Amino acid sequence: MTASYVALEGIEGAGKSTIAGLVAGHQRSVGREVVVVREPGGTELGEEIRRLLLHSGEMSPWAEAALFAASRAQLVAEVVRPALERGALVISDRTYYSSLAYQGHARGLGVAEVRALNEAVLDGALPDLVVVLAVDPGVGLDRQVEPDRIGGAGLDFQRRVAEGYRLLAEQDPSLVRLVPAGDSPEQVAATVVELIGEM
Amino acid sequence: MTASYVALEGIEGAGKSTIAGLVAGHQRSVGREVVVVREPGGTELGEEIRRLLLHSGEMSPWAEAALFAASRAQLVAEVVRPALERGALVISDRTYYSSLAYQGHARGLGVAEVRALNEAVLDGALPDLVVVLAVDPGVGLDRQVEPDRIGGAGLDFQRRVAEGYRLLAEQDPSLVRLVPAGDSPEQVAATVVELIGEM
Repeated sequence: MTASYVALEGIEGAGKSTIAGLVAGHQRSVGREVVVVREPGGTELGEEIRRLLLHSGEMSPWAEAALFAASRAQLVAEVVRPALERGALVISDRTYYSSLAYQGHARGLGVAEVRALNEAVLDGALPDLVVVLAVDPGVGLDRQVEPDRIGGAGLDFQRRVAEGYRLLAEQDPSLVRLVPAGDSPEQVAATVVELIGEM
Repeated sequence: MTASYVALEGIEGAGKSTIAGLVAGHQRSVGREVVVVREPGGTELGEEIRRLLLHSGEMSPWAEAALFAASRAQLVAEVVRPALERGALVISDRTYYSSLAYQGHARGLGVAEVRALNEAVLDGALPDLVVVLAVDPGVGLDRQVEPDRIGGAGLDFQRRVAEGYRLLAEQDPSLVRLVPAGDSPEQVAATVVELIGEM
């Protein structure tokens, strides 16, 4: 079996979009249809929600978590589920595992509560492989191109997010795989391709 | 004991905002601080979400449910919880019980699933009295001032929503009270005031 719905996760600057592009290129070169999506956003509604999320003023942590969930519910209904149904590989630059690590763990809402919220709205369309690109939080922050309301929360916050990802991998090691992102992008992508083939 | 967080619920045209105004007036006349809120909306973020909800194009039912939840999470954090903490009476023109009746029952997402989503984001701030203004769906539709994407779904849909409210009242009769809305607004408001005093 190979994975069909792959989550690429990690803190800011871990290299998710670079790796998504490399893995997609490889899988296309072996004849697989690949759909790459990015959260939050990826649909007309999602882009409007993304704008609210990145640049709004006062926002309660639970409102933020629900907005992420709304954006991804639309992306899953409009893009991900149809792609999976026709047999494509879906590579998602962030999924609800970001909400588990960021809102659930780092912001302290509770991983179980944020999971309940998201698994309700995703209605069964859940990733079958979650790759966490593990990078040193200091390095990740330096690499970050465009600081915003969410990415801009500083090194301590990035450390808590990284810890959240580690705990998720410990809880569900067959689904959530930590991949060291210090190697060259080509090496990291090769590791991810291998994991896709093993699921 | 008197209720402190009162939900006014019902289909379009049931008279919720009229009754909210009359009940608020009465409670203020006996010296109580009253805060009236309306969903979706009621905060800067909520108004932006309301605009998306009422006039957006394609939207999956779960994205819609999550947007309602996001708006109410913000309203509860910013307005409702602080008002309750200083001892005010909060009257809410719609709450998550609308989502249970509309999305959960009438649109078929499942009442339990929509409840899980909402009770996660509300983080314990739940109404202690839910008044459902029960009006004949045909009459309600005639009274409706401003048809929109949600209110405009027709008589059959309004009937399913009304049925959803009835089932919620059957499941939890001490919390959810059906009040016939065919009487004069003054009579209906007096009944609601009585229920507030009885909780």
